[in-house]
Amino acid sequence: MFRAMGEFELISRFVRCFDVLESPRGPGDDCAVVPPAKHATCVTTDAIVEGVHFSRLAPSRASRLARGRAAFEDIGHKALAVNLSDLAAMGARAEWFTVALALPRRVRDADVIKLGRGMSKLARVHGARLIGGNVTRARELSITITASGVLEAKPLLRTGARIGDRIFVSGTLGDAAGGLLRGAPRELVRAQCRPTPHLGFVRRARKMISAAIDVSDGLLQDLGHLHVGAELDSAAIPLSRALVKFVGARRALELALRGGEDYVLLFTAPDRHAAALRALGAFEIGQVTRRSGVRVDGKAITGRRGFTHR
Amino acid sequence: MFRAMGEFELISRFVRCFDVLESPRGPGDDCAVVPPAKHATCVTTDAIVEGVHFSRLAPSRASRLARGRAAFEDIGHKALAVNLSDLAAMGARAEWFTVALALPRRVRDADVIKLGRGMSKLARVHGARLIGGNVTRARELSITITASGVLEAKPLLRTGARIGDRIFVSGTLGDAAGGLLRGAPRELVRAQCRPTPHLGFVRRARKMISAAIDVSDGLLQDLGHLHVGAELDSAAIPLSRALVKFVGARRALELALRGGEDYVLLFTAPDRHAAALRALGAFEIGQVTRRSGVRVDGKAITGRRGFTHR
Repeated sequence: MFRAMGEFELISRFVRCFDVLESPRGPGDDCAVVPPAKHATCVTTDAIVEGVHFSRLAPSRASRLARGRAAFEDIGHKALAVNLSDLAAMGARAEWFTVALALPRRVRDADVIKLGRGMSKLARVHGARLIGGNVTRARELSITITASGVLEAKPLLRTGARIGDRIFVSGTLGDAAGGLLRGAPRELVRAQCRPTPHLGFVRRARKMISAAIDVSDGLLQDLGHLHVGAELDSAAIPLSRALVKFVGARRALELALRGGEDYVLLFTAPDRHAAALRALGAFEIGQVTRRSGVRVDGKAITGRRGFTHR
Repeated sequence: MFRAMGEFELISRFVRCFDVLESPRGPGDDCAVVPPAKHATCVTTDAIVEGVHFSRLAPSRASRLARGRAAFEDIGHKALAVNLSDLAAMGARAEWFTVALALPRRVRDADVIKLGRGMSKLARVHGARLIGGNVTRARELSITITASGVLEAKPLLRTGARIGDRIFVSGTLGDAAGGLLRGAPRELVRAQCRPTPHLGFVRRARKMISAAIDVSDGLLQDLGHLHVGAELDSAAIPLSRALVKFVGARRALELALRGGEDYVLLFTAPDRHAAALRALGAFEIGQVTRRSGVRVDGKAITGRRGFTHR
């Protein structure tokens, strides 16, 4: 892997940003070699593409919004974060990842290194090691990451929720969507550019959880992927002060329900764990119901149910 | 995985083209779950991008060249083949893969399914199972695959060649490069569009091989990645009759040396295995030398050493 277009110097500089898997074999041969595994592993692939997932934040507008903060570092961070968030949603511990970069000529080598730094900083926090990748020319910038994690217990599936289970989220909602709005404050732009995968939370809470997914498409839409009926209490949905201050309480709730890309965990658990989960920082927002469909404060939700990437 | 843009119907049709990993968990949750592994595994990532890796063959020109054969099936085949070829170059048996599709709006759903069919046909031959993926909108078509294989013995590294080892290739060279030329005959177009990963060959030959790489950048350039001096015998370099007939012997040799994308294996082995390897269909083309650099018929090779993707 990491065979590409003769750009060996760039690749080698990119790889040096990371803690790489050295043994038995990391980047530099035809494949990486991963040792035998005692546990089952999780594997996920997610891509972010310029003009679809981050046109709004890179490079010109983001720099403006984010007051000169390096947008390429954000892109590198986010490309990995969305994958680590999938691992969190399964209850896995991050282990390794590959990076496929598609680079337009206008992206300078220095930008690629910034991207690598943003990515490696997040990788280091979660102990994820780069094992290889690919670099190719392209007309639009995209980053496709495949990440793997170890499952030290049963995976948290989307299908495990039971009627009567409580519904939780592991952080505030709507901030990432708010960060896309003109004039958004720094905290919300940060939520959009630098989502935090909740791997730490899931490690502590895993044993209590019956079903989990991460909120990438929006609370209502992702709730639909759990294939349960749900009754939500709007007053319990956690909103950041920055979001409420910026758009008002009513619009904030709308963004929390339908905005996407928050990458907090949405999960269910039996009632008996509710207190312990709240103590770990989770917010109880509702309950799994026998009746299908999603209700908020008793009213059925209709119409467009979330955020769809353009 | 395979969460994407609300195009659930397309994804579900795409996934149905394949033998998927069903247990413990394939496409349809946040991650695939792969069972614990007794052996070390190989992992590789490779992308093919329209305008870089297959503009010349898809969709209009290829259809013309290939007399109406479905170019999207070729693209699906090739995207997987280049990854399986990396597994072959490590001596691994293909096991699973993920597919990240970046789709421009002009690519119709029917084309995506053709792409899936081309890919799944090859996957089935080698027992590779789809475990998940990602679909996103993009302005240019690209397919990024991450593939994994089982290593039932030590991996074949690029660094294992010893002075005096013989140098072999597992098939004819130059055909894929010939297939890009105007008016190329069907066999050469096929070599370009539908490279054959040599997984079967490597399974039989693995124990005799000291170092291996697949020929993607061109014989001379890939030989450079083995970090050895080499003396090649031009008369021993295998050329297809179709290539020689099409471009003449001299130009055919040039394409064999510097053309890329043949995806045959280039490997070294001790002299004592030469007869057995030839019996398996390998071609002995030279010898690893103490002196660095590559010589063909005693003459040092200088200048551009292979094929670089534009």
